[in-house]
Amino acid sequence: MRSVSVGVIGTGWIGQDHIRRITERVVGARVVAVADIDPERAKQVASDVEARALPTGQDVIDAPEVDAVVVTSWGPTHAEYVLAAIAAGKHVFCEKPLATTAEDCLRIVEAEQVHGRRLVQVGFMRRYDAGYRQLKQVIDAGDIGTPLMMHCAHRNPTVPEGYHSAMAAQDTAIHEIDTVRWLLDDEIVSAQVLTPRSTSNKFEHLTDPQFMLFEMAGGARIDLEVFVNCQYGYDIRCETVGETGAVSLPDPAQVWLRDAGQVRTGVYQDWKDRFAEAFDVELAEWVRAVRDDALTGPSAWDGYAASVISDATVESLRTGGVVNTQLKDRPEFYGG
Amino acid sequence: MRSVSVGVIGTGWIGQDHIRRITERVVGARVVAVADIDPERAKQVASDVEARALPTGQDVIDAPEVDAVVVTSWGPTHAEYVLAAIAAGKHVFCEKPLATTAEDCLRIVEAEQVHGRRLVQVGFMRRYDAGYRQLKQVIDAGDIGTPLMMHCAHRNPTVPEGYHSAMAAQDTAIHEIDTVRWLLDDEIVSAQVLTPRSTSNKFEHLTDPQFMLFEMAGGARIDLEVFVNCQYGYDIRCETVGETGAVSLPDPAQVWLRDAGQVRTGVYQDWKDRFAEAFDVELAEWVRAVRDDALTGPSAWDGYAASVISDATVESLRTGGVVNTQLKDRPEFYGG
Amino acid sequence: MRSVSVGVIGTGWIGQDHIRRITERVVGARVVAVADIDPERAKQVASDVEARALPTGQDVIDAPEVDAVVVTSWGPTHAEYVLAAIAAGKHVFCEKPLATTAEDCLRIVEAEQVHGRRLVQVGFMRRYDAGYRQLKQVIDAGDIGTPLMMHCAHRNPTVPEGYHSAMAAQDTAIHEIDTVRWLLDDEIVSAQVLTPRSTSNKFEHLTDPQFMLFEMAGGARIDLEVFVNCQYGYDIRCETVGETGAVSLPDPAQVWLRDAGQVRTGVYQDWKDRFAEAFDVELAEWVRAVRDDALTGPSAWDGYAASVISDATVESLRTGGVVNTQLKDRPEFYGG
Amino acid sequence: MRSVSVGVIGTGWIGQDHIRRITERVVGARVVAVADIDPERAKQVASDVEARALPTGQDVIDAPEVDAVVVTSWGPTHAEYVLAAIAAGKHVFCEKPLATTAEDCLRIVEAEQVHGRRLVQVGFMRRYDAGYRQLKQVIDAGDIGTPLMMHCAHRNPTVPEGYHSAMAAQDTAIHEIDTVRWLLDDEIVSAQVLTPRSTSNKFEHLTDPQFMLFEMAGGARIDLEVFVNCQYGYDIRCETVGETGAVSLPDPAQVWLRDAGQVRTGVYQDWKDRFAEAFDVELAEWVRAVRDDALTGPSAWDGYAASVISDATVESLRTGGVVNTQLKDRPEFYGG
Repeated sequence: MRSVSVGVIGTGWIGQDHIRRITERVVGARVVAVADIDPERAKQVASDVEARALPTGQDVIDAPEVDAVVVTSWGPTHAEYVLAAIAAGKHVFCEKPLATTAEDCLRIVEAEQVHGRRLVQVGFMRRYDAGYRQLKQVIDAGDIGTPLMMHCAHRNPTVPEGYHSAMAAQDTAIHEIDTVRWLLDDEIVSAQVLTPRSTSNKFEHLTDPQFMLFEMAGGARIDLEVFVNCQYGYDIRCETVGETGAVSLPDPAQVWLRDAGQVRTGVYQDWKDRFAEAFDVELAEWVRAVRDDALTGPSAWDGYAASVISDATVESLRTGGVVNTQLKDRPEFYGG
Repeated sequence: MRSVSVGVIGTGWIGQDHIRRITERVVGARVVAVADIDPERAKQVASDVEARALPTGQDVIDAPEVDAVVVTSWGPTHAEYVLAAIAAGKHVFCEKPLATTAEDCLRIVEAEQVHGRRLVQVGFMRRYDAGYRQLKQVIDAGDIGTPLMMHCAHRNPTVPEGYHSAMAAQDTAIHEIDTVRWLLDDEIVSAQVLTPRSTSNKFEHLTDPQFMLFEMAGGARIDLEVFVNCQYGYDIRCETVGETGAVSLPDPAQVWLRDAGQVRTGVYQDWKDRFAEAFDVELAEWVRAVRDDALTGPSAWDGYAASVISDATVESLRTGGVVNTQLKDRPEFYGG
Repeated sequence: MRSVSVGVIGTGWIGQDHIRRITERVVGARVVAVADIDPERAKQVASDVEARALPTGQDVIDAPEVDAVVVTSWGPTHAEYVLAAIAAGKHVFCEKPLATTAEDCLRIVEAEQVHGRRLVQVGFMRRYDAGYRQLKQVIDAGDIGTPLMMHCAHRNPTVPEGYHSAMAAQDTAIHEIDTVRWLLDDEIVSAQVLTPRSTSNKFEHLTDPQFMLFEMAGGARIDLEVFVNCQYGYDIRCETVGETGAVSLPDPAQVWLRDAGQVRTGVYQDWKDRFAEAFDVELAEWVRAVRDDALTGPSAWDGYAASVISDATVESLRTGGVVNTQLKDRPEFYGG
Repeated sequence: MRSVSVGVIGTGWIGQDHIRRITERVVGARVVAVADIDPERAKQVASDVEARALPTGQDVIDAPEVDAVVVTSWGPTHAEYVLAAIAAGKHVFCEKPLATTAEDCLRIVEAEQVHGRRLVQVGFMRRYDAGYRQLKQVIDAGDIGTPLMMHCAHRNPTVPEGYHSAMAAQDTAIHEIDTVRWLLDDEIVSAQVLTPRSTSNKFEHLTDPQFMLFEMAGGARIDLEVFVNCQYGYDIRCETVGETGAVSLPDPAQVWLRDAGQVRTGVYQDWKDRFAEAFDVELAEWVRAVRDDALTGPSAWDGYAASVISDATVESLRTGGVVNTQLKDRPEFYGG
């Protein structure tokens, strides 16, 4: 069983975390080369895992010992590196977003088709969460009948000051955008954002919470509360309602404490804790898929669709109205 | 402690149920007179509780031994009886709707003001449910900060064939319409209905489920799933999300069974079971309030507001757009 | 429908509470006479409900207007009043204990049989709690197969200083002693008390918690944690394990709060709140049973059995060993 | 980072499972040699992971490329292999039981002390379960005060025909025996088994369920229901009750389904699913500890203690009485 040699472009927080996972948690892979815009950081990170620090991301892609590439650099650079990896015929795992514009996503989608085999996976890790997987299993088995609605919430305790209102769609809701497409095996055809009274626990410029509405091609309706300053914790809720029943994501299992007049359990404060196992599974399955040249995870098309839909969501935040998503037809290459 | 002598107009299902409650569950009251459009039924019901059967509802109102009136007749007759009770200076408990048009509700509101003291209570029983009361207590105490959103669901297993699409607002959502106004102590200023793909488990003519959106004067946003053919049970959900926390109605406590690979508990099939205690408390508190001439329950104004808002909701179902509710200013008489 | 006129002997806390219930919550009954060892208190309580204050309990029993008697006086006086009520041929509801010695319980059992019809009901209110009733329903329906074990806990936040170690059986566990006999429709044949390390949150003289073990005639085993200084709340747990499944009492439904990193719900602090509805139902059903001369609630025999079994439990606390309960044969009169 | 080369003795079900984990789930280790009493099976398993099949377990221990040994052979052979590994100065992970007699456990304990450093870890995987770890964290933090009681249940849906009554202690309860010692950081000083009425869903020869009672040196009391034919699932319960609160293991998080009048979630059918992650963590941590020569997992002493205590439990099953465990003094080597 050949080990997969991975090159990592971008050694900021998420890059380091993926390097740690590949090194400590994923069997059959190792990080052999890294690059970062800050060469000192790259060197430091590289030396920790006995990898080479290379001057540029392109060098990582070109390095002959690199079998596959992980792109965790600054968002605006994603498209360039993913396209370069495709050009080099190497598998590439790209953290969300696949690109910062739908056009760039589409260029990737086209380049991959020209290559003729899937090379790109986008980092939508929820598809690897045990709870979401069980949700999908129940839905696919027909246990709740045809799905008609989904009620979702995505709550963060707080966000840093740099977070602005469009990020509610682009950075936060994008996870649910991918998840509902995948869970329902259907496409989002319109988006709308309602703006409840904003919390006072936020930066002046921020619209928070936002209440998002999506319509699927098949007629199911999705509602999603995005509330990134909810104070109390990182809390993810998802209920799918079908013709004969409803199925809900469970709260993560933590011990129950009875004290001081209460029965209580903890809520995670951080998405990194909430989805720690999902990240592990995501990278482990990606490595296996790379080895077998048989990618099944979120595709470049999924990255493109998420980009178009989050753009539509942001536009609705601006205009207040319903915005139809203008997705191209899905190519047969992606199961269209 | 004087006993309250109650006259009941309308001895159909809900009338009989209220008579039974007053007789068997409410201390300090008894049913002394009844009337029904079907005189035989009135006689039968009257004899069960040793009351008089009178020819008409007006006779019940006029009967000197009747201290207070319960109106449980056919909806279109409500306004007439309530107005007559006010004219007679007698307290009147009217099952929802207070009247079938907003105009008639307004006539009642005006008549009551002319009388100068509250005489009318509308049968919004959820305000008497222990769970909702605890919700209100938590919200009022500021334990979740300023409320920003409410997520609600109102699911029935099935409905009879006579149920049509407008009833989703008029008969079903009307409970939540009253509840959110009361919980948030705020007014609904707009309504909108989205229509997810309909379930196949319904009559041809019915739009089911409906997803309703309400906006409060203070900016909070309410979403409400109404799904009257959900098959699995009568299920009421309500979560209020505030600036620092969220509070949810609990599922009713029933025993937990572990068998056959599952942990499970029951869901009620019937609103009569789900809110049985709320109905008891509602009538018991009404009787006490009548005795003390100090009504505090849902008022004629609440009945009027619910009527206007459910009309707006039905209009949105027809037009698809956001419909502003056009409520009159709340008179000081009703705490305006 | 004739109203039942009740005389109450003993107007301490529990007596006043029962008087309040009968007056405010129970249809078809009223309190017409009271007596107390403190005549001033009796007068005060009587005047609140427009009843007569009589000099002695015997006077209450003898009063011609009294249909039925409630005994809520000091425990050592119970037997005398219950026997007197039987002698007078009047129904009597006696708070636990039925008598302070098994011998006195037996005298009551014998007197009632001589009378020839059931007149005595003992105040084991858990049989009227909705959760326990549903437990019994599930067990009786065979939904968990033959019961093999029950795991119970009875926790109080604190107890007053007068509480001593034997009261863990006599006052606290006595509720479970009755409940398991009723739920399993079987008799307890032995008792044993294990003494875990005692909490430091207790009076010096008190053994707390106590871990009690009971064996049923049919072979089922019961374990019961009695912990009366658990600090955090009044918490009652009961799981019955059968051949094919297990069924548990639910925690009471209270709202769920998500805040400060937690999901939490309340635990009652007081048995009066936890079993408030059970007390209401208990007295309402007793009044109906009295009116129909058809008692079905906990009998004098149940009071006798509870007395014998709690004596055995106390003996085991003293000796440490297994103590066989030495119950007489159940007379046919009591379904033996 | 050096990879740990592991030799596995015994390639039955659990051996194959550990080989699969080490190969697929544990970073930094690989299986290089295996042996089994069935040489064909050894060859087959070895070829799957590109390891050598050796004739005997001793050959595996002696193989120079083997850094550390996993013993998953038939229980009666454990002691011999563990002692041989110690003699060879190699780390050894031994599935429970460490040995089939307390005497043999003691010989291992003594041999390890002679060697002078810990080499032995016993396969008590619950210490690696996230829920149990959180329980320990809460207890150690003092969040429930001094622990006074633990209520545990260990339920299997069914067992194979070879399972006999002593195995309830030796194979089943042994997990809780280790867990409570670890959670409470205290020793078990006595054991007793009560035998409720047996289920009819069992083999004739089997006493099932068994209700076990343990007393800790510090006075805490443990009760444990072992029920290996409970039919409905593999269900593990553990509540620790302390002076100020109680903490419970959560049920594993699975999706909640609302359908057919119920709210329900799944119960695992198999301990391999229930503790799948615990097994992964156990082996990953063991490999790291081996690499760092710094074992912290369940020790030979823990294996010895579990053996002595399960023997005492079996003796109580035979005699019915309380059996004091006769543990040697814990050597300083093991933190005594």
